[in-house]
Amino acid sequence: MIVSGFSGAGKGTLMKRLLESHDNYALSISMTTRAPRPGEIHGKHYFFVEKDEFEKTIAEDGLIEYAQYCGNYYGTPKSYVEQCLNEGRDVILEIEIQGALKVKKKFPEAVLVFVTPPSAMELRNRLIGRGTETKEVIDKRLSRAVEEAQGIENYDYIVINDELDRCVEDIHAIVMALHCKTNRSISIIEEISKELNEISKGEEK
Amino acid sequence: MIVSGFSGAGKGTLMKRLLESHDNYALSISMTTRAPRPGEIHGKHYFFVEKDEFEKTIAEDGLIEYAQYCGNYYGTPKSYVEQCLNEGRDVILEIEIQGALKVKKKFPEAVLVFVTPPSAMELRNRLIGRGTETKEVIDKRLSRAVEEAQGIENYDYIVINDELDRCVEDIHAIVMALHCKTNRSISIIEEISKELNEISKGEEK
Repeated sequence: MIVSGFSGAGKGTLMKRLLESHDNYALSISMTTRAPRPGEIHGKHYFFVEKDEFEKTIAEDGLIEYAQYCGNYYGTPKSYVEQCLNEGRDVILEIEIQGALKVKKKFPEAVLVFVTPPSAMELRNRLIGRGTETKEVIDKRLSRAVEEAQGIENYDYIVINDELDRCVEDIHAIVMALHCKTNRSISIIEEISKELNEISKGEEK
Repeated sequence: MIVSGFSGAGKGTLMKRLLESHDNYALSISMTTRAPRPGEIHGKHYFFVEKDEFEKTIAEDGLIEYAQYCGNYYGTPKSYVEQCLNEGRDVILEIEIQGALKVKKKFPEAVLVFVTPPSAMELRNRLIGRGTETKEVIDKRLSRAVEEAQGIENYDYIVINDELDRCVEDIHAIVMALHCKTNRSISIIEEISKELNEISKGEEK
């Protein structure tokens, strides 16, 4: 599952709460060439690597997707995602829309979820509410938000983050529903039909 | 949403529990020409009507689907389903696969869910477990079960009824996820994008 959303839509808090309240999830960890910030831990917040290692990983097709931003590489290592999937966990990738759509093309089984505040005013209030950004930055983000929604019509689900706990349960419901998709369980029905045939035959004897 | 399943899969109990634990659901009520059994209430268990009224409803295209069984008509009246949908409720129809597939053709937005016990043996045990049927009836049901699964590959979801409460929550998750489908909420994103544009313009003045 890939989760995207407007900056300020509350994705971070949402993911944190989802992972706290349900034990089936794993959050994908990105690989980056930027320097760690104080408090950031290698293998928890990011996999911090040198430029040549990142480019070697690209060459080996070891990334699900990657992009360059402010002179640094950011990408999603395949190996960590595959490891989590093999452990039977539901892996969540946080990627912006354009990257997410590329992943969907490569992996059609990926499910795209967009998180949005209930209104533009609410979004603006949240951006201001943080109190950590200048007016200029906020305005820039607002105009960027319009761009951030480009391609949304290709998404599978939209989750409205008006109430955190309900929003967490919406995302959980989407994942639980995916587990019930017919293609995942049709073998059980085929097995039952086969067994029923055998029972019937057995009783006729 | 249309729920189907093997006889003995526990659909009845499941639906009862779902309606008790969540208040967004309405169970569709069938129309039939068969006589009421003791305790059955018109408008609750069935809409009991005369043959000519049933055929008039068919002629008026007032049924979502109908079938004849043991000389009696059974069908799903459109009006009751539409009334519940207009009240904002999630309507559940209990129909066998062949009827369900016909409904899906007419109403592609219908979602098909198949309920199954975890194994053929479990299914057989449940049928015997009721203690109300003869061995002959049980055997007939077992061989019918094989037929009942024909067409299952066209279903959207399969829910395994191994533990009642989990199964109820699976069905609820499927419905909650459907509410998050992009086509249902894309207007919110369009609205936000429009408003953000206006905010940006307003601040430039």
